[in-house]
Amino acid sequence: MVVILKRNAEHEKVNALMRQFEDLGLKTNLVEGTETNIIGLIGDTSKVDEQMVLANSVVESVRRVSEPYKAANRKFHADDTVVDIHGAKIGGGNFGVMSGPCSVESEEQIIEVAQRVKAAGANFLRGGAFKPRTSPYSFQGLKAEGIELLLAAKKATGLPIVTEIMDIRHLDLFSDVDVIQVGARNMQNFEMLKQLGHCNKPILLKRGLANTIEEFLMSAEYIMAGGNTNIILCERGIRTFETYTRNTLDISAVPVIKHLSHLPIIIDPSHAAGIPWLVEPLAKAAVAVGADGLMIEVHNCPAKALSDGAQSLTPDQFDGVMQSVKHLLDVEGKKILPANC
Amino acid sequence: MVVILKRNAEHEKVNALMRQFEDLGLKTNLVEGTETNIIGLIGDTSKVDEQMVLANSVVESVRRVSEPYKAANRKFHADDTVVDIHGAKIGGGNFGVMSGPCSVESEEQIIEVAQRVKAAGANFLRGGAFKPRTSPYSFQGLKAEGIELLLAAKKATGLPIVTEIMDIRHLDLFSDVDVIQVGARNMQNFEMLKQLGHCNKPILLKRGLANTIEEFLMSAEYIMAGGNTNIILCERGIRTFETYTRNTLDISAVPVIKHLSHLPIIIDPSHAAGIPWLVEPLAKAAVAVGADGLMIEVHNCPAKALSDGAQSLTPDQFDGVMQSVKHLLDVEGKKILPANC
Amino acid sequence: MVVILKRNAEHEKVNALMRQFEDLGLKTNLVEGTETNIIGLIGDTSKVDEQMVLANSVVESVRRVSEPYKAANRKFHADDTVVDIHGAKIGGGNFGVMSGPCSVESEEQIIEVAQRVKAAGANFLRGGAFKPRTSPYSFQGLKAEGIELLLAAKKATGLPIVTEIMDIRHLDLFSDVDVIQVGARNMQNFEMLKQLGHCNKPILLKRGLANTIEEFLMSAEYIMAGGNTNIILCERGIRTFETYTRNTLDISAVPVIKHLSHLPIIIDPSHAAGIPWLVEPLAKAAVAVGADGLMIEVHNCPAKALSDGAQSLTPDQFDGVMQSVKHLLDVEGKKILPANC
Amino acid sequence: MVVILKRNAEHEKVNALMRQFEDLGLKTNLVEGTETNIIGLIGDTSKVDEQMVLANSVVESVRRVSEPYKAANRKFHADDTVVDIHGAKIGGGNFGVMSGPCSVESEEQIIEVAQRVKAAGANFLRGGAFKPRTSPYSFQGLKAEGIELLLAAKKATGLPIVTEIMDIRHLDLFSDVDVIQVGARNMQNFEMLKQLGHCNKPILLKRGLANTIEEFLMSAEYIMAGGNTNIILCERGIRTFETYTRNTLDISAVPVIKHLSHLPIIIDPSHAAGIPWLVEPLAKAAVAVGADGLMIEVHNCPAKALSDGAQSLTPDQFDGVMQSVKHLLDVEGKKILPANC
Repeated sequence: MVVILKRNAEHEKVNALMRQFEDLGLKTNLVEGTETNIIGLIGDTSKVDEQMVLANSVVESVRRVSEPYKAANRKFHADDTVVDIHGAKIGGGNFGVMSGPCSVESEEQIIEVAQRVKAAGANFLRGGAFKPRTSPYSFQGLKAEGIELLLAAKKATGLPIVTEIMDIRHLDLFSDVDVIQVGARNMQNFEMLKQLGHCNKPILLKRGLANTIEEFLMSAEYIMAGGNTNIILCERGIRTFETYTRNTLDISAVPVIKHLSHLPIIIDPSHAAGIPWLVEPLAKAAVAVGADGLMIEVHNCPAKALSDGAQSLTPDQFDGVMQSVKHLLDVEGKKILPANC
Repeated sequence: MVVILKRNAEHEKVNALMRQFEDLGLKTNLVEGTETNIIGLIGDTSKVDEQMVLANSVVESVRRVSEPYKAANRKFHADDTVVDIHGAKIGGGNFGVMSGPCSVESEEQIIEVAQRVKAAGANFLRGGAFKPRTSPYSFQGLKAEGIELLLAAKKATGLPIVTEIMDIRHLDLFSDVDVIQVGARNMQNFEMLKQLGHCNKPILLKRGLANTIEEFLMSAEYIMAGGNTNIILCERGIRTFETYTRNTLDISAVPVIKHLSHLPIIIDPSHAAGIPWLVEPLAKAAVAVGADGLMIEVHNCPAKALSDGAQSLTPDQFDGVMQSVKHLLDVEGKKILPANC
Repeated sequence: MVVILKRNAEHEKVNALMRQFEDLGLKTNLVEGTETNIIGLIGDTSKVDEQMVLANSVVESVRRVSEPYKAANRKFHADDTVVDIHGAKIGGGNFGVMSGPCSVESEEQIIEVAQRVKAAGANFLRGGAFKPRTSPYSFQGLKAEGIELLLAAKKATGLPIVTEIMDIRHLDLFSDVDVIQVGARNMQNFEMLKQLGHCNKPILLKRGLANTIEEFLMSAEYIMAGGNTNIILCERGIRTFETYTRNTLDISAVPVIKHLSHLPIIIDPSHAAGIPWLVEPLAKAAVAVGADGLMIEVHNCPAKALSDGAQSLTPDQFDGVMQSVKHLLDVEGKKILPANC
Repeated sequence: MVVILKRNAEHEKVNALMRQFEDLGLKTNLVEGTETNIIGLIGDTSKVDEQMVLANSVVESVRRVSEPYKAANRKFHADDTVVDIHGAKIGGGNFGVMSGPCSVESEEQIIEVAQRVKAAGANFLRGGAFKPRTSPYSFQGLKAEGIELLLAAKKATGLPIVTEIMDIRHLDLFSDVDVIQVGARNMQNFEMLKQLGHCNKPILLKRGLANTIEEFLMSAEYIMAGGNTNIILCERGIRTFETYTRNTLDISAVPVIKHLSHLPIIIDPSHAAGIPWLVEPLAKAAVAVGADGLMIEVHNCPAKALSDGAQSLTPDQFDGVMQSVKHLLDVEGKKILPANC
């Protein structure tokens, strides 16, 4: 950490600040420039509160030079984390494909979709039981019943299931769920993250619409700090000024996160774009850029979907996308492993 | 709602879509253009799911022409909502000033700050008991004990208290709190919003960092749909590419929200800017632009604050800010009413 | 175009407005709703000034339903435009690779780089003679001499050259340049665009950092309106809140633009990311998403580059990137055609 | 400047880099940490090219600790710059109000508007002769004739005139113009800025839609580096995800720029908001936040304006705004000085 001092900062106060850092077990190094003096801090600065330093009257600004996350940091964990769910793996050369409808609507619907996505090559079934909707007047999901229906589809197809938690009070309902999803809007719901750190299920953590890559990794760190290291990250678009697409897919986030962290990262082109004909090119780009998987919305009848129909593929369209994806995976030497649930 | 049809959309399918709308009790009106045909929908379209319409194969795009919120909409509630907490009012010409430390740290601290901000003219005490922090290694607040200390400060000064809820499971701890704050990161924690709709306490709802004004009002609508109409909105900066300030204060949001909604809206210049010397000019701008109040961080010793010290004012600095603010409030004919707790 | 009227708009004024539209040769269609009335306009609305309509006292808002661009619109020109420079083609299945240093620095440097990028498979040489720099104290390019050196490299290698114009007064200097680049900062330098519409050289138009896809196509339309239809578009990252990468590559812009327009579009991963190790994954993603080409910075000695060294590849690194790119191009059935200058 | 080194950077290469800095006349200071080593650079680093440093194989990242602008920096020029145009002053407690139509349309129109805005208290007449329009099919301004009409209005009213230059080849036409405006889209048209640095007219420099405050000041620095120090900055809204307003007024930029620079800064609420009823609250906020002036669009008949009618005020509306503004200026102790042209 580098502390930039104000011009004409009083010597005495600077010395007091340096002693304060030394009391925290850090070594300090004062560099006196022509215009600006700085203090270099040596040691574990992850617990130094930037805000407190900034509030000191002699401080102009503060720059971190090392990452504030440890457990999620590749520097301290060089090998790729591989999340393994009954044999379906994500990370380390294994590609995961999570597909299914935005909302679970009926047993018939979810089983039909599950069979179709499995046949096309997906190795996970996703479906919403609890649905975050901008409007209180929109369909809010089948809730507990939705989870029952997902479990029925799992039984019918053997696909592990992924579904979103919206309230930590519902955690008990997720005991047979294979992967618990934390949605973009809850990426910084810190109390939920802490609690999930103490459960022993894989977590699919989606990036918030306005969150930096560093904040994204800090949210993973929240879960990991509790002991749960089975985390799959998911880039699903960020909010920008562009309005043609629903969000802007930050595809660079994939290689950046693979550089900074050992955690697997997948892409959700359905939410990123919000347009079904963009799913195929973006899914192909996801493979090419090095993502560890995809999450794609598929609905048996998008025009009658109770939510997000606009961005869902039909099973036939999904077949086409998966052919392209599998073709590219061969080129990249990656494979999709099916689970044996 | 206006539905723009694809070029060469088949007549039959367009008719089927129109019948679908008519089945929802809407009147339809087909306008045939030279390049594009559109369907105008007449009636209450707030329950029409845009996504479902977009998923129809003949639809190019959909444009809403009326707002999706009803309870929060000024069109259906012309008069300003005035939130009244033991006589301290916000809205309708009454200005509220909520001040205090980011985190409650000790009884001595919170009472000292409460006395100072009251003396300076604030009519609410704010303080964090549960703290949302980006890092799991940062101080997370005194929690239940923090609320006890706020209540002690309320007893000592008569100031109503405002504090943030981070987990709806904690709601019981808030039974003596006067205003429950929903933080920016929870603005779309819909399960929390629904629950707060059923409690009978005023809610201070902060705008999310990446949320539009319409989404902000939809989150208020979530609470109001449950029956709780005592809502104070708070603009606290949005995320943009500018990095000099912590966030970018969207000051235009104040007159826009006053135009669209009857709910009171205040400004938090401390979080918007993240820099103490920006609080005074932004607080003055808040009064001038027509805000109904301010939330300002004040700490007895910012350089020792356990969180957000960098943006806190000292009590002496706050005295200066309040003099400027009160001067401008006189010009605008607004007043700060003290509570009689 | 759909004009949404204010509630309680006076009948007379609405009629006057409708007559105004009819005077412009448009047909009008009044749709009376329960809450809102709208006017649908039929005919060529591309010349209707939205601002003027919005200024009418009965108008609440205006929504375009057809694109404001014509010449660049795929609706009126279904086939891909192929830009052909002495046999090196871009568009319609032909992939263009433009490589070279940010700044031309010396004859030796530019010829060495040209030979290396040609050997690696690039079919264009790019290099900056006039350099847009944020600081007036930074190196501003070799200017006219830089163009001379590029021409020398063209002579030595047969690669057509691409270089940026920063001031339309310099146009004469570009008479032997093969492709004139308009930089991101000049995307809405409308006087320059108009002038380039009257020259007969291919134009490489880069997207502005804060410009929407629609504005990007409108800038192409400016050039095309003058008669010059040889335009290559280039996505090079937009500005967002994320700071890890220099900009955020908007990869979705490629399939969106290919849907909306017939013009070829390439990707510049060097400027989008600003980090050399991101060039390879982003270049691969560019091929997979369907881009028509790449622009990549290559410098013989990045650490001594007079500008943008940080994001440049060495020739050896570029060899590696091109191997991956060519491998994927084979999969996609696209080819790089060399010029015969 | 602080250079953060990669972990395990080879000693020899680090030494070579340090010698490289020393050759530029800088002192270096190596700080060896537990995780990271850094080099602190002492001396005038404004000419060090960050990109070139970043390209060195031992460098992880670079952080500037002093501002890259000198002439525009308040650290080297403590007193407010006051721009004086025939007695109408901007800066140092003097408030400037620039009003008039987006486009000059006719002699009658511009003289009528000039008389009305002068009567209301404006001390500058603004009007567009050359108009930057997103569409090539929109009205592009009266050009040279527009400047003639502005001069006629100046003669009739004594108001100094402000008008935008879009092409540096037109500079001769501006010989009798009092203030030359550089529009947002040309903020980084560096060749234009350099040229304007050599002319002896005050420049009104508007902030680009996606430009940081630092880049804004660097563009002022470009002009100042040429010798022209008469610069008025103008904040006119930046581009964000919010779509209700045309842009997002970054009101914090005013006190930030007054902190960093001695140059005067005004606000343009018309372009920032794009909605006439937002002009008054934003103009009041501009005064309260400490701006040195306002630029406001006024048109005799907005609904017939050839450009930007939607955001223009009528002269009667402008009278009302100016009453509020003058009232607040009294409170702030600032004055509007009329020119004696």
